[in-house]
Amino acid sequence: MSEPVGTDRVLARLRDDRQGVLERLATLLAARSVSTDPAYAEGMAAARALLLERLAAAGFANVRLLQAGGHPAVYGEWLGAPGQPTMLVYGHYDVQPPDPAELWRSPPFEATMREGRLYARGASDDKGPSSIAIETLAAFLAVEGRLPVNVKILLEGEEEIGSATLGAILDGNRELLAADAVLSADGGRWRADIPSIAVGSRGIAALEFTVTTAVKDLHSGRYGGVVPNALHVAARLLASLHDADGTPAVEGFLDGVAEPSAAERAALAAIPFDDAGYYADLGTAPAGEPGYGTLERLWYRPTIDANGLWGGYTGAGGKTVIPNAAHAKLSMRLVPGQDPAAVTAAVVRHLERHCPPGAKLSVRTGHPSAAYLVPGDHPLLLAAEAALRETTGREPLRVRNGATLPLSDIVHGRLGIDTVMFSFSTADEDFHAPNEFIRLSAFDDGFAAWVALLRKLGGQGAEAWRR
Amino acid sequence: MSEPVGTDRVLARLRDDRQGVLERLATLLAARSVSTDPAYAEGMAAARALLLERLAAAGFANVRLLQAGGHPAVYGEWLGAPGQPTMLVYGHYDVQPPDPAELWRSPPFEATMREGRLYARGASDDKGPSSIAIETLAAFLAVEGRLPVNVKILLEGEEEIGSATLGAILDGNRELLAADAVLSADGGRWRADIPSIAVGSRGIAALEFTVTTAVKDLHSGRYGGVVPNALHVAARLLASLHDADGTPAVEGFLDGVAEPSAAERAALAAIPFDDAGYYADLGTAPAGEPGYGTLERLWYRPTIDANGLWGGYTGAGGKTVIPNAAHAKLSMRLVPGQDPAAVTAAVVRHLERHCPPGAKLSVRTGHPSAAYLVPGDHPLLLAAEAALRETTGREPLRVRNGATLPLSDIVHGRLGIDTVMFSFSTADEDFHAPNEFIRLSAFDDGFAAWVALLRKLGGQGAEAWRR
Repeated sequence: MSEPVGTDRVLARLRDDRQGVLERLATLLAARSVSTDPAYAEGMAAARALLLERLAAAGFANVRLLQAGGHPAVYGEWLGAPGQPTMLVYGHYDVQPPDPAELWRSPPFEATMREGRLYARGASDDKGPSSIAIETLAAFLAVEGRLPVNVKILLEGEEEIGSATLGAILDGNRELLAADAVLSADGGRWRADIPSIAVGSRGIAALEFTVTTAVKDLHSGRYGGVVPNALHVAARLLASLHDADGTPAVEGFLDGVAEPSAAERAALAAIPFDDAGYYADLGTAPAGEPGYGTLERLWYRPTIDANGLWGGYTGAGGKTVIPNAAHAKLSMRLVPGQDPAAVTAAVVRHLERHCPPGAKLSVRTGHPSAAYLVPGDHPLLLAAEAALRETTGREPLRVRNGATLPLSDIVHGRLGIDTVMFSFSTADEDFHAPNEFIRLSAFDDGFAAWVALLRKLGGQGAEAWRR
Repeated sequence: MSEPVGTDRVLARLRDDRQGVLERLATLLAARSVSTDPAYAEGMAAARALLLERLAAAGFANVRLLQAGGHPAVYGEWLGAPGQPTMLVYGHYDVQPPDPAELWRSPPFEATMREGRLYARGASDDKGPSSIAIETLAAFLAVEGRLPVNVKILLEGEEEIGSATLGAILDGNRELLAADAVLSADGGRWRADIPSIAVGSRGIAALEFTVTTAVKDLHSGRYGGVVPNALHVAARLLASLHDADGTPAVEGFLDGVAEPSAAERAALAAIPFDDAGYYADLGTAPAGEPGYGTLERLWYRPTIDANGLWGGYTGAGGKTVIPNAAHAKLSMRLVPGQDPAAVTAAVVRHLERHCPPGAKLSVRTGHPSAAYLVPGDHPLLLAAEAALRETTGREPLRVRNGATLPLSDIVHGRLGIDTVMFSFSTADEDFHAPNEFIRLSAFDDGFAAWVALLRKLGGQGAEAWRR
């Protein structure tokens, strides 16, 4: 159904308007929309205002905010294709904090072009990929006055904080958000040089714990050797989470986790992957659970990682104190078969059991999200693979994503529909780290693939979706 | 030789001038003289200016700063007692940082009276005790026009940072600082309710280490399970420093450390000490090296304590990152027989050996100081005990100090003289912690004891000091 790529009028318009696309993205990137920290409320509001304006200008109807007590989501719809399926197009406008700010080579909220890359917090996760989706839809409406399928667009503001109120937003807007599938502009490409679709993502559970060992900080000379040190207790607790060889040591943590099947192992082995180059680029050596290859550990095995650890004196010089409190933030990446609540409970139980006399433990848990797998014969998955096949001339790989898209799990549980991730960010683009960037080539790849996919979906008719 | 306490004119003047004493101390406490952080340079200068002015006004001669490239020491002398011994009276004007500032009930640099205590950073360590010495000497000069002995007063500005340039200051001023003994206003009382003299103090060695596991922070989903996490590496390194039961696990750490003798153990056992009450007051349980009592661990055993530990995201909310760097500050308290340089080298070697593949370790070491013991028959020690016996009516205990007075070690090595600690701060006064305070009763106890001691020393004549 689709025209040859080179002559597609929608794609041509996207190419002609490249400068406009990047300028609108730069404006969105300048909005400091960090969802985890209330200090950034103004940036969150600015990002929403820009998106509301853009969707309305592009021709979406019913453009509005959807609220459920947290950061609102931005919504818009175009429903002018009766008899065609309805896609819930997903993206998110919130970003991770810019810390550590001093390691950025250019200001995190100032889009900066260097060597074929666009640097800014959120460039790759997820304002850039969301923009690819929005701009493609806008170009269809501008050039053809219509979209090949019905589209409801939902741009979340809480992806980076575990989609805290997304479930409530869905619950409160079931009719409004009813669709045949979720087409996600978040989720990321595995690599830039090999076409692939991530058919699954790991889940996440998180907690923060505090260890208190005395009523106050104590002088390390006057009390050294007789009282517990909260930093040593926290260090032992962290160290106790894994055996010396990297195997998770938390009782019950691996309950329900299946070993990769022989077929899965064979498929993994067939994926071209340069183990040595991978670790060399990261400046590190392999680590993690023994007995599994890199991609197995990344896609099929759960993890426990400390994301932050702090206590005592951290300023310049020394301070001879025995700190009475230590804090740690932990997150667990989950795989299919693991129950997020049970995993969280197992880790909390482990910490409680390992907390020594004289120390008190307090734990605060976050909003967990289960792992997700899209059915292998899902029509949106098949269409996405066809679009990639057509625009790249290569057979796309089915891969998984070590990261989490809470949306898939939440939407599946609430609206009963599946999610296909069709993002054009790439795994190495320093999400959540200093100097986050997106390749400018992602806009070429992404526009071509999104245009082809939308045309394919429109050509299928809604009957392909009656499952 | 001394007059009865009740009628001593010098002591009477100190009592009459109580308000003036506390006001001058409050002004000194308001000077933010934190030596470890260059941001406090102005407060350091302010404290020095106040002390220079006070010594000159009191009648000291040759009042000046002594410099050797670090924070200068304040010096003054009164040498009008020929035939009498010369005391090098020591104190320090620098203080620990006020962090964590939010835990202070009143501003750390604003002297605040509550329930018989004076609260401020430095109240107890060591501006309060130093003031007791200075005010006593000033009162002698004001009332009697002379001191019972010759006095050189030295107020250091680097005690809280390991007396970095004190050795160089002594080296550069050997003649100026020549004395028969050091009478220290630092060092602290063991308890407020039992007269005691600390005849020894532990030494200290410190280091800061950084663990780096990758070229950058990595997304905990996209890389979780395949790369090392700097926080886990640092936690394992910290945990490796002790066995599970609290025994130091660093090879060579205990080299040269003698077990307490039977006599020492008997003396320790005779000291009234409420173990249960001690730990209950601190809100904790006993910890440390097994096989030793609380006072043995505190006075006869060395320690390794983390004073600070940090890495990753420590702000509000979560950030799903695998941190590529973690930092820790360690300090070791040393006992007689341990060589500070050898202990430092042993800990560094241990860290290097335990650092796993994929992680890089860098270590920065500080200025160490050996443990110190004053000879049991030293004339200044005997005079100090006699002064306490007279002013309290009780036999003073000989105790040790778990903390470090780098001065004793440095002075003994350079000037060949011993140090007796005669401070009236008390071990429970939250040195180095929020809400540091000094008991107002310390001024009563301290003035009486300092007046008595100076009179006793004057009565001995210099011949008692020919050893």
